[in-house]
Amino acid sequence: MSDDRILLSHGDGGQLTADLVARVFVSRLGTGEPAGDDSARVSTTGWEPVPRDRLVFTTDAFVVDPIFFPGGDIGRLAVCGTVNDLAAAGAIPISLSASFILEEGLPISDLERIVDSMAAAAQEADVRVICGDTKVVPRAKADKLYISTSGVGEVPAGISVSGANAQPGDAVIVSGPVGDHGLAVLSRREGLEFESEIVSDCAPLADMVQHLLAAVPRVHAMRDPTRGGLATALNEIARQSGVEIEVDEAAVPIRPAVLAACDLLGLDPLYAANEGKMIVIVPADQAQPALAVLRSHALGKEAALIGQVQAGKPGRVLLRTALGSHRILDRHVGEQMPRIC
Amino acid sequence: MSDDRILLSHGDGGQLTADLVARVFVSRLGTGEPAGDDSARVSTTGWEPVPRDRLVFTTDAFVVDPIFFPGGDIGRLAVCGTVNDLAAAGAIPISLSASFILEEGLPISDLERIVDSMAAAAQEADVRVICGDTKVVPRAKADKLYISTSGVGEVPAGISVSGANAQPGDAVIVSGPVGDHGLAVLSRREGLEFESEIVSDCAPLADMVQHLLAAVPRVHAMRDPTRGGLATALNEIARQSGVEIEVDEAAVPIRPAVLAACDLLGLDPLYAANEGKMIVIVPADQAQPALAVLRSHALGKEAALIGQVQAGKPGRVLLRTALGSHRILDRHVGEQMPRIC
Repeated sequence: MSDDRILLSHGDGGQLTADLVARVFVSRLGTGEPAGDDSARVSTTGWEPVPRDRLVFTTDAFVVDPIFFPGGDIGRLAVCGTVNDLAAAGAIPISLSASFILEEGLPISDLERIVDSMAAAAQEADVRVICGDTKVVPRAKADKLYISTSGVGEVPAGISVSGANAQPGDAVIVSGPVGDHGLAVLSRREGLEFESEIVSDCAPLADMVQHLLAAVPRVHAMRDPTRGGLATALNEIARQSGVEIEVDEAAVPIRPAVLAACDLLGLDPLYAANEGKMIVIVPADQAQPALAVLRSHALGKEAALIGQVQAGKPGRVLLRTALGSHRILDRHVGEQMPRIC
Repeated sequence: MSDDRILLSHGDGGQLTADLVARVFVSRLGTGEPAGDDSARVSTTGWEPVPRDRLVFTTDAFVVDPIFFPGGDIGRLAVCGTVNDLAAAGAIPISLSASFILEEGLPISDLERIVDSMAAAAQEADVRVICGDTKVVPRAKADKLYISTSGVGEVPAGISVSGANAQPGDAVIVSGPVGDHGLAVLSRREGLEFESEIVSDCAPLADMVQHLLAAVPRVHAMRDPTRGGLATALNEIARQSGVEIEVDEAAVPIRPAVLAACDLLGLDPLYAANEGKMIVIVPADQAQPALAVLRSHALGKEAALIGQVQAGKPGRVLLRTALGSHRILDRHVGEQMPRIC
């Protein structure tokens, strides 16, 4: 039935677009308040005004293939990815936007399932998707659907977190095992079966981060190690802060199933994407309190101290291997895992 | 040369992504300040805090085909579309985000030209693109490139503009001739040549709107009639406000070249997209002052009073034809112009 699939006319701004928006989006993401303007008010309640230098803004495009994978789907990913970028700035998410590019022929039931997932993830993150847009392109001009989400958040007073703030002597913590998302998506895409299924860690980290900041306001830097993995995110921080970071290979938590899959596929788990992990860099004397708070949160139970910041060579990331030698953990060149998020 | 085209590796988050971002995006849109975090601060200056109920947020996806057209390109369109959605809420744009989905093989020179265009449009609109994201998908999984832009804006104190605020007795104004964008894109796509070239009206309207609101703060409703054109936007306002809108066909400004192209293609110019026009609905006694301000602005010189709001049948838009009869101007069903924005 043509009614069950996306048509080009669903994107023309006329009656079918209005019907789709009402049926699929407003019913799942709507506030119950009348809407319809092209811009949405961030909040209609009488909270305190937001100082502009504590208002942060972020955006991401999501093109993951396949759109459904163990532990999530492109909708959950789109919400979590944007919430986590806000969280990495120390911000409490205020509002999200979502724009959809749909391929003609997409089953509407798939779209509904994905928007359900966005609504659930937004609820977990205590944030609302307040505005959106839908476009439709002909068959073979997209791959099922792409979603771009943007987010606005507020950094609490007294918090100053940035990838540029890591300092020699700081401790480097990761909030749990790395590589789960990358290997979950890749295994599903390649049709691989492992003894124990690898499940994406896709989760919104804003609550965990706010708990952390309440207990340890002196966090220097955070970053969620998504595309490019732990190694790439650490390289970014090392460059931004002009410091060297040394990681203890044996201390980095990696699930056995992820290690096994990486061996099989010839991939390095340190470069595999995560969607529910945070790198946290704190003064050395705050490492234990930070670990304690993270481990007390459902999403940080397996948090680990994995290394330290040092003067060394600015921008360099060193891996101290299990054998005690050092190797440079560079930004990788050439695609390891396309369309992972 | 592979260096001249987008590769899948440009989207993997590693060294090539960083190089592309630095070469194409930061050099054109950057602030000169060091950046690199996943979220950007909306402003680092010490302006007044923004009350949350005056902070607005909007998003749009742009999939226009062709990506270059007379009067603009997908980059200019992406900035203007988002600025105009903010303007329609009465807001001054504060910051924009841009997320790119690139097809493998896209010439990097095309991308550079498009980002140049975004930078120029942002400068015209006095707004900054402060954060972005880039993903790459394989050939035939997109069509050259898609851009999603989001925007944050601030509504000045005392302004309350919404599609839900039109009242019987109000005057309906459009800021200039309709259909230019739709026919410019369609003519280029179909390879049609007309005696006088049809040029997209793509322009940022925030400045014109702020001039209008300064002189006529009692504006009730605004909307930029993009996809679906004037008729669709008026239908949206009529439904949101629960009013009838009557339009005088003879009063709607349409360029002769647009009329001729519509005749040839069997299209109705009232449903053709605009990207630099605003529908403005004001109390009847404010119609002449509003027209005067609009006509004094470079982007509103051809503003015209085209109809009025009346009690009638809520949600209905009537067209009073040149012959004096009335016909219903409904939301159209079925695609008139796909991928127009």
